[in-house]
Amino acid sequence: MLTKEEYADGVRYMLKSLADAGFYLTEEEKERIEVADFGLGKVKEIGLQLFTYVNTDRCCAKEMVLRPFQTCPEHTHRDGREDGALVQGKEETFRVRRGLCYLYVDGEGDKATIKAKLPETAVTVFHEIVLREGEQYTMYPNTRHWFQAGAEGAVISEFSTHSNDETDDFEDARIRRIPEVEKICL
Amino acid sequence: MLTKEEYADGVRYMLKSLADAGFYLTEEEKERIEVADFGLGKVKEIGLQLFTYVNTDRCCAKEMVLRPFQTCPEHTHRDGREDGALVQGKEETFRVRRGLCYLYVDGEGDKATIKAKLPETAVTVFHEIVLREGEQYTMYPNTRHWFQAGAEGAVISEFSTHSNDETDDFEDARIRRIPEVEKICL
Repeated sequence: MLTKEEYADGVRYMLKSLADAGFYLTEEEKERIEVADFGLGKVKEIGLQLFTYVNTDRCCAKEMVLRPFQTCPEHTHRDGREDGALVQGKEETFRVRRGLCYLYVDGEGDKATIKAKLPETAVTVFHEIVLREGEQYTMYPNTRHWFQAGAEGAVISEFSTHSNDETDDFEDARIRRIPEVEKICL
Repeated sequence: MLTKEEYADGVRYMLKSLADAGFYLTEEEKERIEVADFGLGKVKEIGLQLFTYVNTDRCCAKEMVLRPFQTCPEHTHRDGREDGALVQGKEETFRVRRGLCYLYVDGEGDKATIKAKLPETAVTVFHEIVLREGEQYTMYPNTRHWFQAGAEGAVISEFSTHSNDETDDFEDARIRRIPEVEKICL
């Protein structure tokens, strides 16, 4: 559970990062910023600041902000079933706007030689993709992935299909299937 | 058909607008900027500059830039059929990053009192939505719409489902079903 100060600090960090990158949120939108600690209680190391512009049944867009070396833990957007029918998992494109993102997905890669700092949460995939300003990568459903900002932090736009935490599958068993995202109105 | 100068001028205008708004494109991406004149031969009045970040079967994201009072003509992303099955039309969210956008959709509205300049192309819907910096609007399939920038021009992010010109239905019969988008490598 985040404290009120941790939440406020995350919001301040996100607003400063967005402003530096030229992104503008309305006053009402600023109240909807989310700070996720994934229930692990060390949000500055394992956590994420985010704002969702839109999330309909068919598509979703967000800004994500990471502090220097902050890590979003490994998870997978898996296909599911609803009334017997296939429901495709989330597809997402990350585009780095500011800073640098180390992204790890299924594929060849060596834990011993990755550029990111090994986070204190379960990670099992090490195929490294380094995204700098203006670079992007698309992940299709069922791809395990985790990511970490470089030394300057990162502002990342996400363009995706519908976002639904219920289908996220985190590698770290301590993380709840629906990650705890504490939002305290200031 | 656009001339080489018109195309280059549109690209320059878009790059300047994006830079002013803090958006960064890679050198390779700059080569993929599109300038659409919709075949009407007056691109500065009826036209659009755009860049597509990603366009998969399921989702799409673009930046669109409009010159002062430049108009994107009225069109509709209709549901279709493929092998007898319903294929939903495009759903799109416009988010204004810089400047102002006058957006017109199906609904109540009076041609005589709209804030936009009446464009020299067929327009039939006049329900007015004024979008300023940080404001957005989501349009579902089968919604007729056209839009025009204010006096300062506009930078607009579009978050949408798959983008497919073949299902666009333009009100102006002179516009080809697949709009002519001339891209000349500089």
